[in-house]
Amino acid sequence: MGAKVALAYSGSLDTTICVYYLRAIRGLKVFSFSANLGQAEDLQPLVERALQIGAEAAHIADVREKFAQEYVLPCVRAQAVYEGGYHLFSAISRPLILEEVVKIAREEGCEYVAHGSRGLGNDMIRFQNGLRALAPDIKAVAPLEEIKLTAPHMDVEYAKKHNIKFEEPTKTLYNMEQNLWGVNIQMPHDRPWPEPPRNTYVWTVPVSETPAKEEIVDIEFADGNPVKVNGQAMAPVALIEELNRIGGRHGVGRYDVIENRIIGRKTREIYEAPAGEILLRAHAALESLVLDKETLHFKPLLSQKYAELAYEGHWFSPLRGSLDSFFGGLNSRVTGLVRVGLHHGNATIRSLESPNTLLEPRRP
Amino acid sequence: MGAKVALAYSGSLDTTICVYYLRAIRGLKVFSFSANLGQAEDLQPLVERALQIGAEAAHIADVREKFAQEYVLPCVRAQAVYEGGYHLFSAISRPLILEEVVKIAREEGCEYVAHGSRGLGNDMIRFQNGLRALAPDIKAVAPLEEIKLTAPHMDVEYAKKHNIKFEEPTKTLYNMEQNLWGVNIQMPHDRPWPEPPRNTYVWTVPVSETPAKEEIVDIEFADGNPVKVNGQAMAPVALIEELNRIGGRHGVGRYDVIENRIIGRKTREIYEAPAGEILLRAHAALESLVLDKETLHFKPLLSQKYAELAYEGHWFSPLRGSLDSFFGGLNSRVTGLVRVGLHHGNATIRSLESPNTLLEPRRP
Amino acid sequence: MGAKVALAYSGSLDTTICVYYLRAIRGLKVFSFSANLGQAEDLQPLVERALQIGAEAAHIADVREKFAQEYVLPCVRAQAVYEGGYHLFSAISRPLILEEVVKIAREEGCEYVAHGSRGLGNDMIRFQNGLRALAPDIKAVAPLEEIKLTAPHMDVEYAKKHNIKFEEPTKTLYNMEQNLWGVNIQMPHDRPWPEPPRNTYVWTVPVSETPAKEEIVDIEFADGNPVKVNGQAMAPVALIEELNRIGGRHGVGRYDVIENRIIGRKTREIYEAPAGEILLRAHAALESLVLDKETLHFKPLLSQKYAELAYEGHWFSPLRGSLDSFFGGLNSRVTGLVRVGLHHGNATIRSLESPNTLLEPRRP
Amino acid sequence: MGAKVALAYSGSLDTTICVYYLRAIRGLKVFSFSANLGQAEDLQPLVERALQIGAEAAHIADVREKFAQEYVLPCVRAQAVYEGGYHLFSAISRPLILEEVVKIAREEGCEYVAHGSRGLGNDMIRFQNGLRALAPDIKAVAPLEEIKLTAPHMDVEYAKKHNIKFEEPTKTLYNMEQNLWGVNIQMPHDRPWPEPPRNTYVWTVPVSETPAKEEIVDIEFADGNPVKVNGQAMAPVALIEELNRIGGRHGVGRYDVIENRIIGRKTREIYEAPAGEILLRAHAALESLVLDKETLHFKPLLSQKYAELAYEGHWFSPLRGSLDSFFGGLNSRVTGLVRVGLHHGNATIRSLESPNTLLEPRRP
Repeated sequence: MGAKVALAYSGSLDTTICVYYLRAIRGLKVFSFSANLGQAEDLQPLVERALQIGAEAAHIADVREKFAQEYVLPCVRAQAVYEGGYHLFSAISRPLILEEVVKIAREEGCEYVAHGSRGLGNDMIRFQNGLRALAPDIKAVAPLEEIKLTAPHMDVEYAKKHNIKFEEPTKTLYNMEQNLWGVNIQMPHDRPWPEPPRNTYVWTVPVSETPAKEEIVDIEFADGNPVKVNGQAMAPVALIEELNRIGGRHGVGRYDVIENRIIGRKTREIYEAPAGEILLRAHAALESLVLDKETLHFKPLLSQKYAELAYEGHWFSPLRGSLDSFFGGLNSRVTGLVRVGLHHGNATIRSLESPNTLLEPRRP
Repeated sequence: MGAKVALAYSGSLDTTICVYYLRAIRGLKVFSFSANLGQAEDLQPLVERALQIGAEAAHIADVREKFAQEYVLPCVRAQAVYEGGYHLFSAISRPLILEEVVKIAREEGCEYVAHGSRGLGNDMIRFQNGLRALAPDIKAVAPLEEIKLTAPHMDVEYAKKHNIKFEEPTKTLYNMEQNLWGVNIQMPHDRPWPEPPRNTYVWTVPVSETPAKEEIVDIEFADGNPVKVNGQAMAPVALIEELNRIGGRHGVGRYDVIENRIIGRKTREIYEAPAGEILLRAHAALESLVLDKETLHFKPLLSQKYAELAYEGHWFSPLRGSLDSFFGGLNSRVTGLVRVGLHHGNATIRSLESPNTLLEPRRP
Repeated sequence: MGAKVALAYSGSLDTTICVYYLRAIRGLKVFSFSANLGQAEDLQPLVERALQIGAEAAHIADVREKFAQEYVLPCVRAQAVYEGGYHLFSAISRPLILEEVVKIAREEGCEYVAHGSRGLGNDMIRFQNGLRALAPDIKAVAPLEEIKLTAPHMDVEYAKKHNIKFEEPTKTLYNMEQNLWGVNIQMPHDRPWPEPPRNTYVWTVPVSETPAKEEIVDIEFADGNPVKVNGQAMAPVALIEELNRIGGRHGVGRYDVIENRIIGRKTREIYEAPAGEILLRAHAALESLVLDKETLHFKPLLSQKYAELAYEGHWFSPLRGSLDSFFGGLNSRVTGLVRVGLHHGNATIRSLESPNTLLEPRRP
Repeated sequence: MGAKVALAYSGSLDTTICVYYLRAIRGLKVFSFSANLGQAEDLQPLVERALQIGAEAAHIADVREKFAQEYVLPCVRAQAVYEGGYHLFSAISRPLILEEVVKIAREEGCEYVAHGSRGLGNDMIRFQNGLRALAPDIKAVAPLEEIKLTAPHMDVEYAKKHNIKFEEPTKTLYNMEQNLWGVNIQMPHDRPWPEPPRNTYVWTVPVSETPAKEEIVDIEFADGNPVKVNGQAMAPVALIEELNRIGGRHGVGRYDVIENRIIGRKTREIYEAPAGEILLRAHAALESLVLDKETLHFKPLLSQKYAELAYEGHWFSPLRGSLDSFFGGLNSRVTGLVRVGLHHGNATIRSLESPNTLLEPRRP
């Protein structure tokens, strides 16, 4: 009696079941945490829902600025994209959420930290790797594993049986997850041939419906960080949101890929990341102007490793930290202006300018 | 008196000067060789021009099929693109030309092999590296270096002075080089900001003028080689030409990049490679379906090295050969069908199918 | 009734328990297989023991030549040593044993293949990875897991309870495993400070007891394979045994290392591999003479990946196969003579000679 | 008239010729700089010699501590050894000397910096690469190139002809170069078979003459830097000198290798680096205890690149700097004690201890 648990609470049915189970069955005092990472939903109702089901306290926090500064921008500077198609929007949200949950666990004196993952999937492994690095003394609890709810449809039955109120899932075509840095839409199947239905995508217009006229965007970088769009200084969150909007209306940033999960299984994944697409292209072009050949030829391997570490939940590993130092050093040169043309699904580099340019004018 | 030289002869003013210099000044018997690699020009007039200036014999050969089979397709299987933007069309033509020139040198008993490169540029280094590997016993001659013609405008003066007839360069906007696998247009400047003028590109339509309707192309691969387009079996040369045509009309395959030359100097380069863009994307997508995670994560480094070796003129090195064996092994799995949508400058993978698929249907 | 299982049978108590369990408890027809890989023990008694406990048939085979040719020599050519200290002697024996067990399973029509591994250790993972690649249709059985014998001391209790006869473990100081290519002695502790007791090692003399006089050994390589020792042609098994003997008496080939297991856990390991130490040093020295700089600087990464794949049980993966092709190509140059001095624990390269030498005499 | 040059002056005949040529022929004011890097010679006489030949001023400086702190220790932390056999002692002295020469050039207002390299050898390339990075505005002068003294024997003739006094080279067997971190002895030939004569080596005793008894050395590391030997705190220079002495008397740290020069040509090189051998082994062992598997498997590539950059004279490149940041981060874990046994040419790791150990005791 009296043992405490901090729970990462998204408000979804499965994490709602976690609140119930931890409180009613395991008899723990539950401290829930929900993060605003730029997803569409309002967090306030989650407080009420968690308390109603028995949580001792329900914390919410707007962590978008921290997410952009400490998680997204390092990935931009490192050119980190997993397998060339996934900008890691969800993978890098996990360590941030875990950081916050552990902070609450420390403040409230919790022995446990709980999460709504199940199976040997990416999220389970990420959570375990992160917790081992951040707080090896705190025990992990995975309620869905303990209840043996191995698939989403079992959640509904469990909820009904235990009188857990939940909203019917909203009528989007498919399950999806989103935050500031991207969105993932889960197709109902995993086959490589059939195309996703026309209205699968949520942030980007189909190429056939994009404007006839190209839109020019000027992005200014300082030390590898984007700091201005079209001449106007913007904080990271606002800047990313703006590029998502602009890119989205030109159909930029769609990905339909075969991805290898942590344990090696393949899945077909649909992502949208207009700001990610635009920023990484622009950053790479600027690098090509200001970094020497030796550096440019050597660093792709480090970018790949950075993306893999992020993907696998090794955000807090010494290796990720050391790679951050590596890229931090290089990016002190990555300052300048990039003009990008957005048109019919393309983000094309038009022009570059930098005080650190290494392009010497050709001798006549 | 008696000594012989085999010359790589493109018909350009600079190589024409080489014929003159080798014959008239150095007193060598000149055996010229000109290759049809799919460039626009007719080779027959080159025979006459070479003979007229004093060549002993003028060889021409259509080596397009050899080029496609032994140079282009290995690059497709190896996913070899230099710095992500150059499909190596000219770099891989050099070793093929050298192979042929050396063959003629052997047949005719030449002590020398000559070429029209000058300075410490890419072509000079490629030629030297290639000859050292292929025929270390044959001496290289670089006439333009010996005459000290350090820049193209000096060629014209030299030609006038020595009564060497030459056509005024045709009225294309800029100097350019092309073959089956791509085209390079040399911009008159090397600055990173100004955009190339609208009519710079020669193979591809600007995105703003591309058709409103997407065009679907089905490409079938066997052992990593493209073998059918839209269900029709095609030999490599015809297949590449067809994809250049289709891609070109949809504005696919433009590159405007900052490139690092062999000695490290940066230049801005304009390339077009519609077939290259389409085939490498399609091949990569098929790989993502049929190769396991471990392999997919490991091989980018080998692709990069392959491209660097090709770029630097190390085509005949043991390392390039061993990498070929490596990729040959892996590509035995890369068999299947790829559906690509060409639309407004995009080559988008729509669908994949393979007997070697590793994508297991998700468990319900 | 009538279902069949092929079992990798080493004769140890744990695999003996497997025979009993599979036959008496699971009711399967057991076909055991035991391999002579150059370990000290006689295999013949294993046949009787297996049959006595209830095996349907007990196969034994001398696979030393196959082991040397198809497993050890590829590792020499690839310079494959895990973490610089483990020559993979046991890791590469697993796929060979599995190959043979699967062959028997096919011949006898077995639905199952069984092995004596337990826990999430290296051997369990290697077995699973190997079987998935070789025979995904055959089901794996891990009897010790099913009986929940999680540690060796529980085997003894189980054996006594079930009247399974077993020899008391022989009076070596520690558990050990050995074959042609090396030996591993398991220290009773896993701490990094205490030195192993003096008589821990079994193949090599301590440096303090080695002969005062250096012994010179000339090793001749052809295409990367050692083919002669001191001028005498020898088949691989005899050659390796000879170098183990010579190296052992000079104290060459001891390793006392901190090793990272497949799942990342560290252990302290003691190995002996005199022939491995001598052959890999000699082979590397010859490579330094006959391979160009570009190749020498690039290949360490591939050697490391080769060793990791072997360590993790991915011997039958496409990537390992393609790396084999890569190294096969390079080793066609690795022909020549290497003189090695063995003295007080050192294997020092004295002299090199090769028809493919790239060392040009210095210009005076 | 009045133009100034700063000259890296070693006191050797070739750099003495440089003083003469720059002053008497080129008419420049010469400011010489000579560094004490731990070589055997006294520097004071160099001052007089330089002045006597016409130098305006002759600077000398003891830069051993700077060398150890800013050049040697970063190589230890990065595990930087070129091609596994060269601890870079001379390669990393060049950028330090250049730093000092450039400092003098700035102070004295020199337009030129001069050095005694010739040909397309390692030192010439290192000097050029270093100067381009450090002071692209200062012009390099290579007097030996200008005089066309292409080989050492021509120096003697030139000196005699121009009445430049020089000492007959001391009667060591061969040319050699040394400093705190190592020594290189140039064999008179470049063939791979003949062994170097017995008295080739200068710092290390032959194995056959080493003491019968092993000597134990305890080395303590803090943040990757060696700070104590046998319990006694020592500054880097003293510590390295001490390990050179101890290692030398046990025959530790000899290298006889085929090395690839910057431009790819092979040479046979003899090195001695007892402290280098001991420290890098000890540091690597400690790393194996305190760094996780992922990190240990990834970093060899970065160590290799670090060594290559140092070898090629890219010490001041952004890439070297960023790799330094990378290794700096990792080495914050590399703290602890390493016991090394020195015996008959072997430096064997005996025991390890660290507060950051990741070796968990085996479960019983």
